Amino acid sequence: MNLLSPLPDARAAEAVDTLLTRSGLRIERIVSHGQASPPGFWHDQAEGEWVMLLAGAARLRFADEPEPRLLIPGDCLDIAPHRRHRVDWTEPTKPTVWLAVFYN
Amino acid sequence: MNLLSPLPDARAAEAVDTLLTRSGLRIERIVSHGQASPPGFWHDQAEGEWVMLLAGAARLRFADEPEPRLLIPGDCLDIAPHRRHRVDWTEPTKPTVWLAVFYN
Repeated sequence: MNLLSPLPDARAAEAVDTLLTRSGLRIERIVSHGQASPPGFWHDQAEGEWVMLLAGAARLRFADEPEPRLLIPGDCLDIAPHRRHRVDWTEPTKPTVWLAVFYN
Repeated sequence: MNLLSPLPDARAAEAVDTLLTRSGLRIERIVSHGQASPPGFWHDQAEGEWVMLLAGAARLRFADEPEPRLLIPGDCLDIAPHRRHRVDWTEPTKPTVWLAVFYN
C-alpha cells in the first residue's frame, strides 16, 4: 500500500483510513483538502497522538500556545492526552496528508 | 522536529533516532545510505513493526516470499512478530529514510 498515491479526491470531509489497529495502538492516514477544525472547536483526546505531515501544509494550534505552528512535510510532534489542539488551516490547493499514531 | 531535513551524513552504519517511546510502543527514524542487512542475516523480532518509506528506495525481502519487494516513498507495510525479513538493498546515491513503529 502507498500512502501518497493514489490520494482520495477532495470532498466535504477529511478522508480517514485506518492503516493498523493493535491493542492500544491505531495508525491512521488523514487526507485534508483545505478542511480545518470548526470555529471554536478544540480536540481533547484521551489518547496520545504522534503525528507527522507527509504532504501539503497545515497550521496546528495548541490552546496553551499563543501562535499556531506551521507544519510542512516531514514535521512531526507528539500531542499528549488531553492537550487541547485544533487545525486552524490546511493547504486549500492541494492535498495535505497526515500520518497519525494514536496510543494509550 | 523535521524527519526529512536535516538528514545525517552518510556513515558506516544506519542512523537510528528514537522519536517516541511509550509503553509497548517505539517510533524510530532510520536513515540508510546504501546499507543492507549482512549476507545471510534475517531479522527475527519479538515486536511487530509497521514501517513506511519516507524517502529513497529499498528492497525488502521476506523469508516466506520468493522475491524482494521494492519500496518507494509512501509505501508502508506491517511486519508481524517473528516474520523473518532482511533489507537486500537501499539506494546507494541518496538517503533512504524509514519510519518504523515497533509495538508489542
